[in-house]
Amino acid sequence: MEKKEVTVDYTDGMAFNGKVAQFDIHMDAKPEVGGLDKGPTPKPLLLVSLGGCTGMDVVSLLKKMRQEYDSYKMKISGEQTDEHPKHYHKIHVEYIFEGESLDEGKVKKAVDLSQEKYCGVSYMLKQAAELTYSITINGSTI
Amino acid sequence: MEKKEVTVDYTDGMAFNGKVAQFDIHMDAKPEVGGLDKGPTPKPLLLVSLGGCTGMDVVSLLKKMRQEYDSYKMKISGEQTDEHPKHYHKIHVEYIFEGESLDEGKVKKAVDLSQEKYCGVSYMLKQAAELTYSITINGSTI
Repeated sequence: MEKKEVTVDYTDGMAFNGKVAQFDIHMDAKPEVGGLDKGPTPKPLLLVSLGGCTGMDVVSLLKKMRQEYDSYKMKISGEQTDEHPKHYHKIHVEYIFEGESLDEGKVKKAVDLSQEKYCGVSYMLKQAAELTYSITINGSTI
Repeated sequence: MEKKEVTVDYTDGMAFNGKVAQFDIHMDAKPEVGGLDKGPTPKPLLLVSLGGCTGMDVVSLLKKMRQEYDSYKMKISGEQTDEHPKHYHKIHVEYIFEGESLDEGKVKKAVDLSQEKYCGVSYMLKQAAELTYSITINGSTI
């Protein structure tokens, strides 16, 4: 069973420095809640984590399927509740590919496999939020 | 209902760039899975997000309680399952304070309020993992 440890240290104001191995992630709050807006706020990092996790799965699966593309981006949105604890109750991942030779079915299979089988971050967030996703290839949503 | 959107773009190899407002978070995989280890892996960002979220609550609450301290750090560990989808099924947050004039009861109250009422990240991860926490003040766990 692998164990991962990170540190998150208070620096000043409302700012914290997270450390994953040798990498620093500076976080801060918006001025309206006492921060100086020097870094990302913490909650959207959940969405970034989700994008990296499913993204790496998809890159790896498409490589095995010998699929090539010019670009691959994701837009990930989270809808936050108004009541405490304020959390994302809905999350949507839009997978956006550009590439003339892409096979729609294979792209869909790679994304489905990540979302349904491999991505642990997706699995975790799905326990708390309604998680949906869509795929756009060369401007058309499939 | 506030909506937050981030982008996560594939760059090269296994690397992705997450963007939260104007801030970039570069992620990468370890060499054993095809990455170049140029940034944090995605999953531990869940733990960083948790630390920032509860950390900001606690700083804010301790300020209201007129509590002063010399330092405040957190160690956050996640125990990952061996089976897919590999995810943290246990998470522990250790809150570590140094400060001679700290009132243990007030620190405990601030941490409890964050974990039980305010921190949306904690709320979300708790749906998927057993989340525990402990508090250490001047080297003694209370």
